[in-house]
Amino acid sequence: MTELIHDVARIGHAELFTPKPQESLRFFADVLGMEEEAREGQSVYLRGWGDYLRYSLKLTESEQAGIGHVALRTWSSEALERRVAAVEATGLGKGWIDGDVGHGPAYQFTDPDGHPYELFYEAERYVAPDHLKPSWRNQPQRYTARGACVKRLDHINMLAADVRPNREFLEDVLGYRLYERIELDDGTEGGAWMSVSIAAHELIYVADHYGAHGRLHHLAFWVDTREECLRAADIFVENDVFIEAAPSKHGVVQGFFLYGYEPGGNRIEVTTGGYFVFDPDFEPITWTQTERARGQFWGVKTVESFHTYGTPDVAGAR
Amino acid sequence: MTELIHDVARIGHAELFTPKPQESLRFFADVLGMEEEAREGQSVYLRGWGDYLRYSLKLTESEQAGIGHVALRTWSSEALERRVAAVEATGLGKGWIDGDVGHGPAYQFTDPDGHPYELFYEAERYVAPDHLKPSWRNQPQRYTARGACVKRLDHINMLAADVRPNREFLEDVLGYRLYERIELDDGTEGGAWMSVSIAAHELIYVADHYGAHGRLHHLAFWVDTREECLRAADIFVENDVFIEAAPSKHGVVQGFFLYGYEPGGNRIEVTTGGYFVFDPDFEPITWTQTERARGQFWGVKTVESFHTYGTPDVAGAR
Amino acid sequence: MTELIHDVARIGHAELFTPKPQESLRFFADVLGMEEEAREGQSVYLRGWGDYLRYSLKLTESEQAGIGHVALRTWSSEALERRVAAVEATGLGKGWIDGDVGHGPAYQFTDPDGHPYELFYEAERYVAPDHLKPSWRNQPQRYTARGACVKRLDHINMLAADVRPNREFLEDVLGYRLYERIELDDGTEGGAWMSVSIAAHELIYVADHYGAHGRLHHLAFWVDTREECLRAADIFVENDVFIEAAPSKHGVVQGFFLYGYEPGGNRIEVTTGGYFVFDPDFEPITWTQTERARGQFWGVKTVESFHTYGTPDVAGAR
Amino acid sequence: MTELIHDVARIGHAELFTPKPQESLRFFADVLGMEEEAREGQSVYLRGWGDYLRYSLKLTESEQAGIGHVALRTWSSEALERRVAAVEATGLGKGWIDGDVGHGPAYQFTDPDGHPYELFYEAERYVAPDHLKPSWRNQPQRYTARGACVKRLDHINMLAADVRPNREFLEDVLGYRLYERIELDDGTEGGAWMSVSIAAHELIYVADHYGAHGRLHHLAFWVDTREECLRAADIFVENDVFIEAAPSKHGVVQGFFLYGYEPGGNRIEVTTGGYFVFDPDFEPITWTQTERARGQFWGVKTVESFHTYGTPDVAGAR
Repeated sequence: MTELIHDVARIGHAELFTPKPQESLRFFADVLGMEEEAREGQSVYLRGWGDYLRYSLKLTESEQAGIGHVALRTWSSEALERRVAAVEATGLGKGWIDGDVGHGPAYQFTDPDGHPYELFYEAERYVAPDHLKPSWRNQPQRYTARGACVKRLDHINMLAADVRPNREFLEDVLGYRLYERIELDDGTEGGAWMSVSIAAHELIYVADHYGAHGRLHHLAFWVDTREECLRAADIFVENDVFIEAAPSKHGVVQGFFLYGYEPGGNRIEVTTGGYFVFDPDFEPITWTQTERARGQFWGVKTVESFHTYGTPDVAGAR
Repeated sequence: MTELIHDVARIGHAELFTPKPQESLRFFADVLGMEEEAREGQSVYLRGWGDYLRYSLKLTESEQAGIGHVALRTWSSEALERRVAAVEATGLGKGWIDGDVGHGPAYQFTDPDGHPYELFYEAERYVAPDHLKPSWRNQPQRYTARGACVKRLDHINMLAADVRPNREFLEDVLGYRLYERIELDDGTEGGAWMSVSIAAHELIYVADHYGAHGRLHHLAFWVDTREECLRAADIFVENDVFIEAAPSKHGVVQGFFLYGYEPGGNRIEVTTGGYFVFDPDFEPITWTQTERARGQFWGVKTVESFHTYGTPDVAGAR
Repeated sequence: MTELIHDVARIGHAELFTPKPQESLRFFADVLGMEEEAREGQSVYLRGWGDYLRYSLKLTESEQAGIGHVALRTWSSEALERRVAAVEATGLGKGWIDGDVGHGPAYQFTDPDGHPYELFYEAERYVAPDHLKPSWRNQPQRYTARGACVKRLDHINMLAADVRPNREFLEDVLGYRLYERIELDDGTEGGAWMSVSIAAHELIYVADHYGAHGRLHHLAFWVDTREECLRAADIFVENDVFIEAAPSKHGVVQGFFLYGYEPGGNRIEVTTGGYFVFDPDFEPITWTQTERARGQFWGVKTVESFHTYGTPDVAGAR
Repeated sequence: MTELIHDVARIGHAELFTPKPQESLRFFADVLGMEEEAREGQSVYLRGWGDYLRYSLKLTESEQAGIGHVALRTWSSEALERRVAAVEATGLGKGWIDGDVGHGPAYQFTDPDGHPYELFYEAERYVAPDHLKPSWRNQPQRYTARGACVKRLDHINMLAADVRPNREFLEDVLGYRLYERIELDDGTEGGAWMSVSIAAHELIYVADHYGAHGRLHHLAFWVDTREECLRAADIFVENDVFIEAAPSKHGVVQGFFLYGYEPGGNRIEVTTGGYFVFDPDFEPITWTQTERARGQFWGVKTVESFHTYGTPDVAGAR
């Protein structure tokens, strides 16, 4: 076994495109209960009460829904340099930018499927204003109890025309570990669940039903308990948020979920649970097409749209 | 900032001494719901349903209660060699043993306070016998639903006559990260919460009230939900297990807890919750003596014994 | 408003028929975690840990699955006499029997659809044997923590060829209150949810898809928390119990549910939640066919079998 | 056994006095998440999202904290007449008033200890304005998700110089059933838990430590899950609400609780759980002084103030 690469620490933030900025902002602020931390240009920067950095979501007005970019934070400046060199060697690099609200220089690149990514290290730690000061100092911000009151961005699920090269790119170039995957009967990969930590998934790639490129399956926000997922579903119902999949437990990774579409059309998950991978020789689970057809953990069949819909929406575009 | 050491992956297992082996075994098997995986000599090896390796608890008959040893697993053979070299340089090393049930060669040493430790890498992955085969392959073992049905060993809390050198040893020699600590008014350290992962605590040191050496505060076993902690308390009550602290939420690290004493006298926690530390520049929280006196998260005052009792019991021994 | 009839206190117990007595017994004892309280003839009498009387389920070997009878307990001997007189006046009475394990004289009758019922008052209070003595005396039995560990029988859902006369019989003759109902576009009743207490449902009638008589939709057993429903689903999965509907929240009555089939074929629910009806002038909710088609509380579409399957199974028999 | 009196249906509402009306209103509206339904004179009328009538709490400015009155709703006009006649026969009656916001004629009286009560039947059903219309019609009001978002008033705990005559008054005159009680070594009653429904407590009397009259121990508001009690404690912490007793489980009645003081000084509970009493011959549990000293369900010792503090505060007044 070659030694693991420990250079990427986490997903710093994701940028989400929305064609309905006001309605989307209301969803993230009032329904999910996030705080507005900054505004600049056509973007609003939002945070969960447990986010250590200033924000984890950059919401940007755009013609179409979809993922703007994903920004990965490294463990150090040296780690950043090493990963940039590795990315450059693949030919997928695009070059440096000066930074953005709350973080320093970032290196832009894409994954093999074309999703925009950034790597950065320097970032501002969040300092709560008085009205958001927490009662306990080991919490970055007050628990506001507003709406579903999500704690932080948890993971991102990308659609890709071909999962395999993206999975290999994350493993080989960025140091992600593979924890679970689906191998279809034709030998192609149906999906890959990867992480740089003990959390069972941070970045996921699943096959794009339409063979399109650069699309988003969903962003997932964390709550600490399953009861909060159930409660979030009640809040979705009362706020006319479309629920695609009511709270239940996934078979893959065993995460507890609630899926809805925010007003801009992007699929959003409220999630908790799953398992931790502490051991270095953890053998990734490979699911067959037959096993995958078994449904979710408790036998629920996933609704069809979950396997086809993504943003931007390309239904019928093939 | 110097780069982090990523050599220790996790606590592989803990050995617990008990003067009442039958009663203690009944506690771990029937009340906590662990599985007996092996027996050898005066020891029984036990596992939670979510343990990846064969076991996480070695329960050994002994004259006194207390911690037998803690075995840390490294990320690789090379990582093992590096850490052994680092330990040897401190003069705390004791030498290699051939291994034990389920794992290969291990290097023995002590922390500055005298608690016995081991470092190892080679280990056997658990393969469930038929009656314990799980329904989903991404789970090492069937969820038996027996008793509190703990998932795995989570963290260990050691008592030390002087916390500081032990905290520094874990940070500098083993690569643990410090997430929270208590600094008393006299400048000594009241406690230190450390981890090699995003989990907010894996190894904890708190000041020994009696200034004794090598004592154990508690072993903590994980359940996935707070409701399981509440349910475990009902199970403790129905099985005459002494509850020292009923389920509530800690201020430090914000973990949810239930504390009881197993029949051998060792303090055992059933735990869940807490927060994750994803960021490389996370600033450890330092609590003052005054803040610590505030009690737990919801203002509950911790019972006195929690600050004094440990195993072996040395009450009045000073 | 005429004054309410307060004569029936509760469902004392239900008798369930099973063609697979050993497998069914294992389900109720090990998977649901009920205690065997008595055996007589082809019947085993089972109880939940919170049942005040000796048992709430009589499991009887039979050629076909289905409901044996439902025994209603009155508030007093006088109340029993009044209800028997009222039943006799309808012509549905069958006469007295001497009693059964744990209860005294009972009056047998059927509802208009033909389901067998009994009315009784005299009953034996449960006295726990030593190994089942609870730690707290306000609990009839020790919480054993075995399997899903259901607390008590909660409610019964009957299929009827025509819901209306059965609903009217329960309201007018037995004193049940109607809390919710479904009125289909053709003017027939799709279902009626009734209770003699503040609990939102104790007896339910829904239209039999096949127009058959005397069939059972399901028996529901209570747990105190939604987390226990989720946990029960895990236990069903590990024990190969067929899950028809994974845990979720009903629109009608807002109860939280898990539905599976016990080995004999009867549908069994693990339930909690719902609302209480404290007010005397509570207006029953009437749902239209269109509203009903909306699915469950969080928009989940109920699986087809839920609307057609019952015991005994008469599929294709129309 | 004499037949039960089924005339009182429920507690319609409670009036609470506060010397800090603005701060108290903020507590009930923002921290507990109740809705303001009406204002009149020095009173604000508040409701939980699950209240069937217009309100369950009348908050009234007053020099001292304490209970204003408790209004009991009967099952019918005839039941009202019967109970008024029964009260008049005791000499504790005071006469009729025309009614109040949301309800018709009410008969005023006191319990033997002097707490003001009312009996009424006619009442207005709540009709939600557009912005509070629920998504499901079987819910009186939208779940707003604001603060702890309590569902309804659940029970009331009164302090009395002598518990016994008040307990007997509720049983004999109003038809309450006794479910649990404490009998002290000197033969006096330490407390009595009573209900007119299957819910294990609606009205409670406990001995006043100071021998004072007419004082309030606490008002309790219902949430559907224990997780909501835990969450409410976080919300109390973030809003500087004094927590007297952090979430845990009572021994008596087995209710799950969180106790705090609202800004006016009244003790408020957020509660769920407990058990149901379905059987007519349920034998009330009598706890001895020794058993009571055992603490709460999981062995937690209740803080001293819980046994002495009430409103108005008379500490040292004896």
